[in-house]
Formats: sequence, structure tokens, C-alpha cells
Amino acid sequence: MSLLVIGSVAFDAIETPFGKTDKIIGGAATYIALSSSYLANKVNLVAVVGGDFPKEDIKLLQDHGVDTEGLQVKEDEKSFFWSGKYHNDMNSRDTLVTELNVLADFDPVIPASYQSSEYVMLGNLSPDVQRKVIERMENKPKLIAMDTMNFWMDIAREELDKTIAMVDVLIINDEEARQLSGEYSLKTAATKIMAMGPKYLIIKKGEHGALLFGEDKVYCCPALLLESVFDPTGAGDTFAGGFIGYLAKTDDTSFSNMKRAVIYGSTMASFCVEKFGAERIVNLSDSEINSRVQEFIDLSQVKISL
Amino acid sequence: MSLLVIGSVAFDAIETPFGKTDKIIGGAATYIALSSSYLANKVNLVAVVGGDFPKEDIKLLQDHGVDTEGLQVKEDEKSFFWSGKYHNDMNSRDTLVTELNVLADFDPVIPASYQSSEYVMLGNLSPDVQRKVIERMENKPKLIAMDTMNFWMDIAREELDKTIAMVDVLIINDEEARQLSGEYSLKTAATKIMAMGPKYLIIKKGEHGALLFGEDKVYCCPALLLESVFDPTGAGDTFAGGFIGYLAKTDDTSFSNMKRAVIYGSTMASFCVEKFGAERIVNLSDSEINSRVQEFIDLSQVKISL
Repeated sequence: MSLLVIGSVAFDAIETPFGKTDKIIGGAATYIALSSSYLANKVNLVAVVGGDFPKEDIKLLQDHGVDTEGLQVKEDEKSFFWSGKYHNDMNSRDTLVTELNVLADFDPVIPASYQSSEYVMLGNLSPDVQRKVIERMENKPKLIAMDTMNFWMDIAREELDKTIAMVDVLIINDEEARQLSGEYSLKTAATKIMAMGPKYLIIKKGEHGALLFGEDKVYCCPALLLESVFDPTGAGDTFAGGFIGYLAKTDDTSFSNMKRAVIYGSTMASFCVEKFGAERIVNLSDSEINSRVQEFIDLSQVKISL
Repeated sequence: MSLLVIGSVAFDAIETPFGKTDKIIGGAATYIALSSSYLANKVNLVAVVGGDFPKEDIKLLQDHGVDTEGLQVKEDEKSFFWSGKYHNDMNSRDTLVTELNVLADFDPVIPASYQSSEYVMLGNLSPDVQRKVIERMENKPKLIAMDTMNFWMDIAREELDKTIAMVDVLIINDEEARQLSGEYSLKTAATKIMAMGPKYLIIKKGEHGALLFGEDKVYCCPALLLESVFDPTGAGDTFAGGFIGYLAKTDDTSFSNMKRAVIYGSTMASFCVEKFGAERIVNLSDSEINSRVQEFIDLSQVKISL
């Protein structure tokens, strides 16, 4: 099945305790598209960049089978730029620079050839723009998943609530789930958030794995035990790409299959953090992915008879 | 198989955001003995109390099938007493009172009828006393597990290292694992700690579950999602009791069976936190335990084919 991905395609400059980068390719949609490209049959990208965005980075996406017909290039403008610095524990970071540039008035256009996309992943963006994408899909997709962040909870809560009400799966982290629901217990938070609309909720807990809620069930996926995280940038987007990519590949939205999709999401994210930016996820083999999935299975599966 | 349990049998006074207790029965060995009594065939208790310890609390242990021949009663002395107050997040507590009393010069005596115990659980105590128990076992047990805490790392590190080197399984929490190893990454910490002697290591992560390391494998057991924790006192000891009790019941020390034992430990601990002190674990049915184990299975198991 084909997958429509929307989000930022951008430049990042990253500083971690292990080093720093110049401007490298980044943005939620970049990570989602690359990650999902290993799984989904077709990835349709909707995004916007400026004239400063290198043609070879667009070609990189195309080489991964990503359709870039929906990637607007505004020749006279500049691409979105984010720069951040991670603290020593890698769990927190300071944003040094945010230049919206082309994202400031991004009006997403969905090419006719994308209209039959069965799966949609709304990467982190203004909830207003995310909602426009849903409204501009002529055929109702089988499943719409959405990422967001605390920034939108702070400044656009009403818009955000409207968009959340329209999606099937919301993917956020534990801090965001607590802020969105006003509840500390993730169980109570999940109940409140699903009452806002989404039938399924994924709460990412970083080094403690991820939780999938829905159909009155819960699934707890572990995280791999890493000796070190080199750069966490994009890990959440890469998770989302692996999750939705697996659903699009298998075309099965049952809870059992979503559990498997969470493992694929976690697998892709575990690669992402091994190098700077998207470096590690541009060149993965199926056998690398499969053996990493097997690691997740070995980590958590038990034979037991009661 | 029979299980020898050593640790404190004591009075606790607990204050949580939900209320406070007078002196109630507490102590590591109390929780371990009660918890394991649902699983192990025979539980042999080695501990010491003062003349102030109520006969009905000793009878409570006996009613759970716990052999109290090794429970010394020092009529003219007072029982160990601990009082603590939990903060609002339940993740930290202040110790208000610690009165060692009979524990100050506890000399563990192992009755002849306990000498054939195949499994041994050394509850949190001075590492010196824990080691005496190992040395006083005339027959080498099949498996010795040990709990400890940061307090002993601070004041008796050398003694502690000697005792750790003699056990098969060490059971500690994430903070303690980091302190013991000097490593932040739990994976690196585990490698260092197992190099100190234990073939297996369990790291408890509270609301994030537990990790079992050994034989170059790792198992990650989730925690149940609780809406609230009423009182965490004794949860770690109750975990240890469920873990070692299951091993003693099944008499199987393979890694696969230890994974199941971690689920039983987590199950028993999940009951413990539901009420004050040991209140919830004095009266459990097999069907309650089985259905809670099933919840852990449902939370974490996935069918997948690669």
C-alpha cells in the first residue's frame, strides 16, 4: 500500500557530547520517509524546501523510492533550519536556532497521484497544516497517524485538539502525553487522550521503550539496551516511519499487527541514534533490519504455560 | 524444593500521600517469606525479633507455611524498627527513624532442618551477616540470590564485594546498579557487576519493569501500568520472593525459567503496592496470581514471523 508522509524537510545543525555537524539534512518528513521507505511499497512526500536545498539530498530521497512530486521547491526562499545542542545525559537539549523560512506559510498541495494513498503519516508540524492535509485527501485513507510536540500544546492547543480528533493513531512521548492529558499516570493519560478522538495511542518512553494503547489493550515494547546514544535527533520521526511503514507494507490495522509495527518502529529508531542525523538510516539492509527485529523479540518473549 | 530466606523481620511505620500507619509488620524477610510462600514448597526463615514482636505476626508467617524454627526471639530486646515518609511522586522517600535494636548484633543460626535448603534468598542485610549464612550452609545450595542497597555500598563496600562474589543472582535497582558499577549505561553496568561474581543480575526499574542479565542474554520484563501506587514499601522484597519462590517451585535454573521467575516476581510486587505494607500479600489466591501473570504476558507478547 502507498503511504503519504507530510512534515518538514530541512537543515539541522547538531551538537552532542560526541561532536557537532554543519548543516545536514533533517526534518521530520525526511526521517519518516527514509525510515518507511524500507517497508512501505510507495512513499509519497508532501513538504516544502527553499532554493538552498541541495539537489543531491532530494535525489537521496528519490533513491530510496520516495516520490517527491509533492515536494515544493521555493527557489527564492530558504529551507527550514533548526540547530540544537544536547546535554551530557542526552535526555534534554537546547534549541539554539529555529528559522521557519519556507515553513512559515507552507500550504500543502497533494498531487493527484498521491490521492489514493491508503496510509497517512502527519509528521510534526503546525496542527493547522496537518489538518489541511486530511481535508485535502479526496479518498478517506485507511489509517491516519499523527505526531506532534509540546510546542503546539503550548501555543495552538485548540487547533491541535481539532486535528487530534481526526486521526486514528497519535504518536507522542511520555512528557507530551502528560502535558496533553494533565495526568501523571500514563494509563490515565492514555484513557483521556483516546477520549479526544484517536482509537490508538503510542507513548514513546525513550530508553524505557514504547507503549501502544487501543481496543482496551496495552502492549509494552522494550527498548534495546544501548551502551551509548550517539545522537537522538530524528529518533521519534524514524520510529513513526518504521511504525506506519510496516502497517502500509502489511496492510493490516489489527491491534496484533500494530504491536509488530511498534517493534519495527523501535528497530528503525534504534539504528537512527547510532550516528549523526539520518546518516545511519540512509543505508540499511533488510538483513540488518530483520536481525535487529529479532533482538527485540529475544529481549521480550517468554514461553510460559499457566 | 525448599527455600531458605534471611533478612529483617521488623516493625515499619509508613507515611504516604494516601495516609499513614502505626507500627505494622515489615522487614525484607517478612515480604520475601510471604511472597515466596505462594510458590515454594517450603520456606525456611532465618531472622531475629525482640520480645515486643507480636505472637500473632509470627503465627501469620506460620499460617503461610513459613517455618519459623530459625526465627530467634530475644525476649529482653526490641525488634528492628524503620519509619519512612514517601514524597508525592512515590519515587523517593525520607527515612524518619531507623532503630537497629536486635539487628545490631544479629548472628544468624541455621537449624539442622534447614541445611538441605536448595534455594537461598539473602534479603537486604549487612553483607557480613549475609555471608555468614552462606558459610554456615553445610550443603552447597543449587542457587543463592541476594538483595542489597546503596547504604551498604556507602559504608561496607569491601564486605559487600566479598559477599556479591559468592552468589549466583544479584537483585538490585537501577540506581544501585549505577552506584555499584560506576556506569550510567545499564548494559555496561551489568557487564561490570557480573564480572564481580554473580552469573545473573536482575535490575529493577520500578514503573519501567525489570531486566534480567545472564548467559550473554538479556530479558526485559514490563511493569503493569498502575493508575496509582498506594505504598511501595516492600515491593522490591516481594519481587525477590516471587522470583526465588518460582525457581524453588519449578527447580529449574535455566535462563528461560528465570525469565518466567521475573514475571512472577513482578506479579507479586504489583500486588504489594496496592495496599499499605504487606496487607495485600497476606491473602492472595492462586487464581488472582495466575490472572495477574496473564496480564504481564498479554502486555508483552507478540506473534511475529521474520
